[in-house]
Amino acid sequence: MHFLDLILKKRGGNRLSAREISYFIREYVQGNIPDYQVSALLMAIWFSKMDETETRDLTFAMRDSGHIIDLSDIPGIKADKHSTGGVGDTTTLITAPLVAACGLKVAKMSGRGLGHTGGTIDKIESIPGCMTGLNMDRFKEIVSGCGISIIGQTRELVPADKLLYALRDVTGTIDNISLIAASIMSKKLASGSDVIVLDVKTGNGAFMTDRDDAVELARLMVRIGQAARKKMTALVTDMNQPLGNAVGNALEVKEAVEILQGRHPGDLRQVSLALAADMIRAGGLETDEQSAMGRVEKALTSGKGLEKLSRMIEAQGGDPRICEDTGLLPAPDEIISIKAETKGHIAAIRTDRIGNCALLLGAGRRQKNDAVDPAVGIWMGARLGDAVEPGDILATFYINDKTHLDAAIQQFHNAIVIGQSPPKPHSLIYETIE
Amino acid sequence: MHFLDLILKKRGGNRLSAREISYFIREYVQGNIPDYQVSALLMAIWFSKMDETETRDLTFAMRDSGHIIDLSDIPGIKADKHSTGGVGDTTTLITAPLVAACGLKVAKMSGRGLGHTGGTIDKIESIPGCMTGLNMDRFKEIVSGCGISIIGQTRELVPADKLLYALRDVTGTIDNISLIAASIMSKKLASGSDVIVLDVKTGNGAFMTDRDDAVELARLMVRIGQAARKKMTALVTDMNQPLGNAVGNALEVKEAVEILQGRHPGDLRQVSLALAADMIRAGGLETDEQSAMGRVEKALTSGKGLEKLSRMIEAQGGDPRICEDTGLLPAPDEIISIKAETKGHIAAIRTDRIGNCALLLGAGRRQKNDAVDPAVGIWMGARLGDAVEPGDILATFYINDKTHLDAAIQQFHNAIVIGQSPPKPHSLIYETIE
Repeated sequence: MHFLDLILKKRGGNRLSAREISYFIREYVQGNIPDYQVSALLMAIWFSKMDETETRDLTFAMRDSGHIIDLSDIPGIKADKHSTGGVGDTTTLITAPLVAACGLKVAKMSGRGLGHTGGTIDKIESIPGCMTGLNMDRFKEIVSGCGISIIGQTRELVPADKLLYALRDVTGTIDNISLIAASIMSKKLASGSDVIVLDVKTGNGAFMTDRDDAVELARLMVRIGQAARKKMTALVTDMNQPLGNAVGNALEVKEAVEILQGRHPGDLRQVSLALAADMIRAGGLETDEQSAMGRVEKALTSGKGLEKLSRMIEAQGGDPRICEDTGLLPAPDEIISIKAETKGHIAAIRTDRIGNCALLLGAGRRQKNDAVDPAVGIWMGARLGDAVEPGDILATFYINDKTHLDAAIQQFHNAIVIGQSPPKPHSLIYETIE
Repeated sequence: MHFLDLILKKRGGNRLSAREISYFIREYVQGNIPDYQVSALLMAIWFSKMDETETRDLTFAMRDSGHIIDLSDIPGIKADKHSTGGVGDTTTLITAPLVAACGLKVAKMSGRGLGHTGGTIDKIESIPGCMTGLNMDRFKEIVSGCGISIIGQTRELVPADKLLYALRDVTGTIDNISLIAASIMSKKLASGSDVIVLDVKTGNGAFMTDRDDAVELARLMVRIGQAARKKMTALVTDMNQPLGNAVGNALEVKEAVEILQGRHPGDLRQVSLALAADMIRAGGLETDEQSAMGRVEKALTSGKGLEKLSRMIEAQGGDPRICEDTGLLPAPDEIISIKAETKGHIAAIRTDRIGNCALLLGAGRRQKNDAVDPAVGIWMGARLGDAVEPGDILATFYINDKTHLDAAIQQFHNAIVIGQSPPKPHSLIYETIE
């Protein structure tokens, strides 16, 4: 087989066979195909697209490029979740403990934030002492013992994705539904859980700005997971404003803890609970929506969800007392208020800019190896549709390094559109795919 | 400027500016843009195409990537020609001496053969002693003195093309009209002549199998040359059978010499004379077609064309006596006849296979650094439409190494389609573009 023939085949709009796709992934990971040929293929895929069979074959070939985690020695049903990435989107820290409290085993590998979106691993690492680089044995031990563990992806998990993502990032081939689906699903399938719930974000703070694209992606990933005999469910949810109030690592942990304490009955809580209820149903613990939601709500109000989070933090070397006293989380030097300058309604929030604004404060990373400051970020004080007067607090900035503060404030004001009237109300959860 | 933005722009079907294209070529040649990003751009160009302005800007940027040869110190009008490549296509060795005999100065840089097509430099090097690696001063001296010199392209000529062609070759991005036009024309423009005549081949032995594509390419290149203030003319000619009888290096020199001696009044002679007449007109030596052709024919019949070739060979260190006695050219160990097995007419000749057949005999190169055997090749004994009986000689093979002889014979028979009736007659020169 010659790789050039694969390029020409895809360039001509033809389907690549499972054998061809597996040759591509295997030889690329082994270093036998140069990046310049792979980038040509990726661009040909971008233009010619891949059909569902090709996407599934690509996903499976990528999954098989490294270690596949075997969780079968952990008793019970293992569940995993994935969000396609957003701003103020800390559902995992709420959903996962609730699900664990309901009886599923949550063995989750997460990523770090990049660009305007945050990542669960950065958030967990803002908890004093809490480690995310545990080895596989310890990870499984914690999942077995307390029902939940969240660690960073190991190097051995889907090496093909690491190579391909880095190449796609610099060659303009990120935004292709098949490549996105294969990247996400290969890692989920390699992570070994029985149940996978997907939260596909859509809106101006998500990678999928178009709702139909998000629904298509969600459906495609659900079908690929089902082809791999996983119990799948997906929600397509709104990302036209930060989901929670907090944008920044310790701040998001604080908000998650407070939600598990019963506070903040807003969008973040609603989406987190919906994801948890769907996982409960997909895992077979309940069959109908109402009972599933009832069970999740009980885990919340009883404090059992918070207890799971606390036990996980402790098992991973962190200080579990933050679950009682969020004041133990890293705090910044200074807190300043950002106030409205005009009267009106919040007509739009350019959510990606809010993410970039937090990045300017030091909460995120522009490039893979940038350091993040756990203490800094933004606490949003207004949501879409809110009426505001000049002087009203729109947000609180938690700051240390002021190098880019002016730029961040400017960026924030550019992100908040104050208009004459509130925007048309929109759904929080657009679609549930099973 | 970020190269990724250029990829995304072209991917989205937008036009790249002259500034962006010149940035791309300059930085790539300097090693500041990795191959994997360039190949993604090339594939995006393949899909999104480039318009004429972009193609012209790309051509100029490529031309400016290395040395531009200044021929202004050579008195007279300097003329150059280019063929897009074919089989048995040795027009340069006939056209260039005739044009020089008419009074133009021919300062030509040629390439080597690759795949099924031959190259002028290989042919010239089959002449005992004849050198093609002369330095620029000696090249200009010969052009000034005897009116004609043909050498290989220097390393410094359009380095961007060397890099891009090598990358296109392995990434499935050869067959794009803009990339082809820019590759050819950047080298022609950098070679410094005032007059450029193009011979764009079309048919089953050419890179452009489709005639309309060939006409489009010819027109595009003529307009780009004119934009660079060159006097341009182009012919679109047939390549549905080897143009001459000879396919192989010394054999093609022999045929060229014999045509300049007044023999072989066939297609090769006709195209060579037409190209010469067009160069004479483009160079302003004659204004109407008839006088131009008359002048060229006079150069042929008077023997002045042959004399020019002879003087060039001598000046480049070769043995000029081959112009009197082609028996001094390299000869093979053995000559065998390939005979027709059935009765009928030559209905089609798969010309690329004839080229590959010569390659199997050792006359061509599969890869850039392969050695060629100057003595071997094929002398065609039949042309399209000829009536044949079993036992008639279809071709004579000139052979040394017999390793691939059986395969070559097989390939030859596969290339010659003998049918019930002759094919519809077709033109030799489809179009003249001025």
